[in-house]
Amino acid sequence: MPPAPKSAAVSPDLLTSRENRWLKQFRMALRGGLPTEDGSVGVEGARLVEEALRSTCRIEAVLFSESGERHRERLAPLIGRPDTGFPVLRTTDRLFEGIADTEHPQGVAALVQPRKFSLDELFATPPGSCAPLIVVLAGVQDPGNVGTILRTAAAFGATAAVTSATGQSGTASPYSPKSLRASAGAALHLPIVAGLSLAILLTQLKLNGIHCLASCVHEEAAASFSPWQVDWCQPIALLVGNEGAGLPEDIVHSADARIHIPMATYVESLNAAAAAAVLFYEAFRQRQKH
Amino acid sequence: MPPAPKSAAVSPDLLTSRENRWLKQFRMALRGGLPTEDGSVGVEGARLVEEALRSTCRIEAVLFSESGERHRERLAPLIGRPDTGFPVLRTTDRLFEGIADTEHPQGVAALVQPRKFSLDELFATPPGSCAPLIVVLAGVQDPGNVGTILRTAAAFGATAAVTSATGQSGTASPYSPKSLRASAGAALHLPIVAGLSLAILLTQLKLNGIHCLASCVHEEAAASFSPWQVDWCQPIALLVGNEGAGLPEDIVHSADARIHIPMATYVESLNAAAAAAVLFYEAFRQRQKH
Repeated sequence: MPPAPKSAAVSPDLLTSRENRWLKQFRMALRGGLPTEDGSVGVEGARLVEEALRSTCRIEAVLFSESGERHRERLAPLIGRPDTGFPVLRTTDRLFEGIADTEHPQGVAALVQPRKFSLDELFATPPGSCAPLIVVLAGVQDPGNVGTILRTAAAFGATAAVTSATGQSGTASPYSPKSLRASAGAALHLPIVAGLSLAILLTQLKLNGIHCLASCVHEEAAASFSPWQVDWCQPIALLVGNEGAGLPEDIVHSADARIHIPMATYVESLNAAAAAAVLFYEAFRQRQKH
Repeated sequence: MPPAPKSAAVSPDLLTSRENRWLKQFRMALRGGLPTEDGSVGVEGARLVEEALRSTCRIEAVLFSESGERHRERLAPLIGRPDTGFPVLRTTDRLFEGIADTEHPQGVAALVQPRKFSLDELFATPPGSCAPLIVVLAGVQDPGNVGTILRTAAAFGATAAVTSATGQSGTASPYSPKSLRASAGAALHLPIVAGLSLAILLTQLKLNGIHCLASCVHEEAAASFSPWQVDWCQPIALLVGNEGAGLPEDIVHSADARIHIPMATYVESLNAAAAAAVLFYEAFRQRQKH
């Protein structure tokens, strides 16, 4: 039997202008790594698209390539409902490769509107939790670390997240394709306020009776606590700083307390993601007991 | 003033055959990522070379490039002693770049003989520790993860490490340049037996009264414990499996107990390094109390 003919690639100029407009938006959000004009972000791959569809985020569109159609069955219960008002688009493998951010794209992507949250919603105690536990990323520069920390925090029951505004302690966007992938979808489930000024946040935390803990890489002169010395059942915001430099000194000192993970002498420090895992685990352990 | 002339690069054929022999060995150990004929491994960068010099490993040689000489002062107290019997070599920046494993080499490297340990030494309780706490890497394939897990384990008081022999659950070498870098030198300080058969290890652990705990990615049908339900002050070997597949099923079932890190439902699992950080932190927390 002769091999099946390769499906002819559709050249872009044969697409309708509506199709072209969608592909441009997917390209900007995925390969470009930037939100589209209306603020949607791109997620790619069957698992992440599934997480997006399961989340409470608004879906703008879902796109399958020819070979990506093999994932349609898995996603069918989530896109076949009559109440889903978004278009499900189809393109060629060649065009999909041109818009994808990954080297070997799975052929399925979605444009997603991250939900917007007020500070009141951020500070709320969700059902099943004893008190808010907020992760504040203040200067985490690697999108992979941002995603991993959000995933770990969510895994251990964090109730919300904040990323600091650009500037000296600016944090990579939690919604970039790399960060979304590393978060395994947690960035779409966890209530997040992105790009907030740290000064405003610290004031609001105090006003709302939420204890502000600074995670310190080195044991500070100012008394610092071991993770197990902290009562994690209180309302808490945990500040995590830059991978190399840690938190800015003024932030460390204006926090209600400083935490330091004690270690054997010849190992300098844990990496940012491992340190966050340890701190959120300790919170989870104590809250489980309650 | 005219710019200073660039120092003329020495062409390889102007080197003595002894110098050539050393450079070949550095090249194999660094860029090649393989131990030399006599089993030495290569470490690169001022910090890692310093860790090697501080460790009890035998140093075969230290190499500086022209620009790497700026690190000599920092290392002088460790290489200037009359009892150090290794050669300190010098080469050009161009030749150093040709042997280095990193893109922007710091111009300082060492050839190091990892120490060999017997199982008796591995199972010993070092001074200051209540009981052995051994990390067993069984199928960890990424050298970066191997290094990170060793670093984290050492940070939280692990007393020794084992890596499994090649095969289905073979683990990347703890002494490859990438693993050594990720370990931040911990692989040179921690007693390690590399490439051991898991069957032999499990038998020896039982004979020596060391409890064998399997770290499980998913909650197993067979009763599994949360990390805080385990008494970590006993003699313990913690088995960590492959990044994707976890530990082989027969290993999970022949272990004395299974541990699972409980998590919120929508996050599938922690990555291997973060999971190891959490488990060793819990051991450290309990042992600190003792």
